[in-house]
Amino acid sequence: MIVDTLLERIVAMQNPTCVGLDTAFEYLPEAMQAECRTATEKAEAIYAFNCDIIDAIADMVPAVKVQIAYYEALGPAGLQCFAATLAYARERGLLVIADAKRNDIGATAAQYAKALLHGEESGFASDFLTVNGYLGSDGIAPFVEESKASDRGLFVLVKTSNPSSGELQDLKLADGRTVYECMGDMVERWGAGTWGAYGYSRVGAVVGATHPAEAAVLRQRLPHTFFLIPGYGAQGGNAEMIKNSFAAGGMGGIVNNSRGILCAYRKTGGDYAEAARKACLAMKADLLSVLGEIHA
Amino acid sequence: MIVDTLLERIVAMQNPTCVGLDTAFEYLPEAMQAECRTATEKAEAIYAFNCDIIDAIADMVPAVKVQIAYYEALGPAGLQCFAATLAYARERGLLVIADAKRNDIGATAAQYAKALLHGEESGFASDFLTVNGYLGSDGIAPFVEESKASDRGLFVLVKTSNPSSGELQDLKLADGRTVYECMGDMVERWGAGTWGAYGYSRVGAVVGATHPAEAAVLRQRLPHTFFLIPGYGAQGGNAEMIKNSFAAGGMGGIVNNSRGILCAYRKTGGDYAEAARKACLAMKADLLSVLGEIHA
Repeated sequence: MIVDTLLERIVAMQNPTCVGLDTAFEYLPEAMQAECRTATEKAEAIYAFNCDIIDAIADMVPAVKVQIAYYEALGPAGLQCFAATLAYARERGLLVIADAKRNDIGATAAQYAKALLHGEESGFASDFLTVNGYLGSDGIAPFVEESKASDRGLFVLVKTSNPSSGELQDLKLADGRTVYECMGDMVERWGAGTWGAYGYSRVGAVVGATHPAEAAVLRQRLPHTFFLIPGYGAQGGNAEMIKNSFAAGGMGGIVNNSRGILCAYRKTGGDYAEAARKACLAMKADLLSVLGEIHA
Repeated sequence: MIVDTLLERIVAMQNPTCVGLDTAFEYLPEAMQAECRTATEKAEAIYAFNCDIIDAIADMVPAVKVQIAYYEALGPAGLQCFAATLAYARERGLLVIADAKRNDIGATAAQYAKALLHGEESGFASDFLTVNGYLGSDGIAPFVEESKASDRGLFVLVKTSNPSSGELQDLKLADGRTVYECMGDMVERWGAGTWGAYGYSRVGAVVGATHPAEAAVLRQRLPHTFFLIPGYGAQGGNAEMIKNSFAAGGMGGIVNNSRGILCAYRKTGGDYAEAARKACLAMKADLLSVLGEIHA
């Protein structure tokens, strides 16, 4: 069961870190950028960069999150690079999260699930997919079904890391809950009956590192929900803030960092892959300094 | 200004209909399906089918809505077909709505806007894009900026057509509004200052045909918001239910129909393009029977 696999890798590596391959062309070293004119050339350069990053971190990080928007911006050639990046990461033993925040209903949601979870025909097979639950159960059910059929997992947006996330998500409902608590409750319901060996379901939640008070509420409220935690580093989240998103033993979550890893070389100078590896090691040490030893 | 252009075409054609090219491979005639094995062959067959539909309806329908999930399911080849379909529809004088319900924050949302609105590098240039506002203002602002820069428009999900849309969208907030009213209010705010000649902004709303009572509330509440209205036909919406989504003179909205047009040939027999044209004519007559003459 894929969530168990993810947790076992986190424990074995003692590292609840996910590296975000949100690889904007502009993140590449200028020398690499200078050689590219067409979308195809840019996509090939991004793929080469991604492979170097993956090689540098594959032995110490359990998962990568690949943000599809950066690939979509380059059209079909970019999406070929997206497919190749997912495949290379899996080949190197990493679990892959397709960060696509897809949402639609019925037959259309089933097409997205086919595209980004199952992936045999599209080439976009991933282990986890981020989704948006604004449409309610029949927007999520097709993704849950595909997850069960092909052993995948989901992360539903619950409390996002951006400054204005509260405009809708923090509003109080007449029943006393906030909108994000209500979404969290739906996530627990959608995941019911899909629990793995460690008590976490296939339907996880996105809970931003930048909102530690809300994270504490959600960690308590959603005992079977695994958290994908964006917002560490560039967006302002730190290890102390992230502690609230984890259950006992440092279980129940994984923290993403994209720009802080991909662009580490811009601060340190030198080789980007080496800088990425060092940034990963520093992040691991930072997280473990507050979480302690991770264990089931 | 693109919303004015859309309204002017609706008035000139006396037809507030949008044809949904949610072209599942399974919608194609069996003889076309039988010749296809690979994703590329399937994508090419879908493109041929789409072109025939577009040719059959281009003189009487102002816009097509292309649902990207069906193309994503076929991977990069499918997305090449998506790009080609958008381009062919525009070449034939149709406005195109990319139905992708994209959502993310900051730099990532800007990449989606670059991909699906601007579209020069991706090949996915469209006139309108559907987006999901769960993340609040900083998830929408990059799309609004690109819309202003390249004269595009948006449709934000407000009250969706699916049966379970009420699970979140109909909940009462402590301030007395429903979640969908709150989202509608945000849409009016996001569109402020982008009004065209007829008083409608670049930031429209998706309001399902299947919820006429909620549509009436929203039509009243959001005077500057143009509505994209899905749910007619296969999902159970009819002309009488749709009336509530329109302002005086039949202004302020466009009604989508996908399967009812694409698969019309399965009910009538005969050529699929001819059947699609007849279904469009019937839908136009049905809508005008309740809206009367459309005029500014």
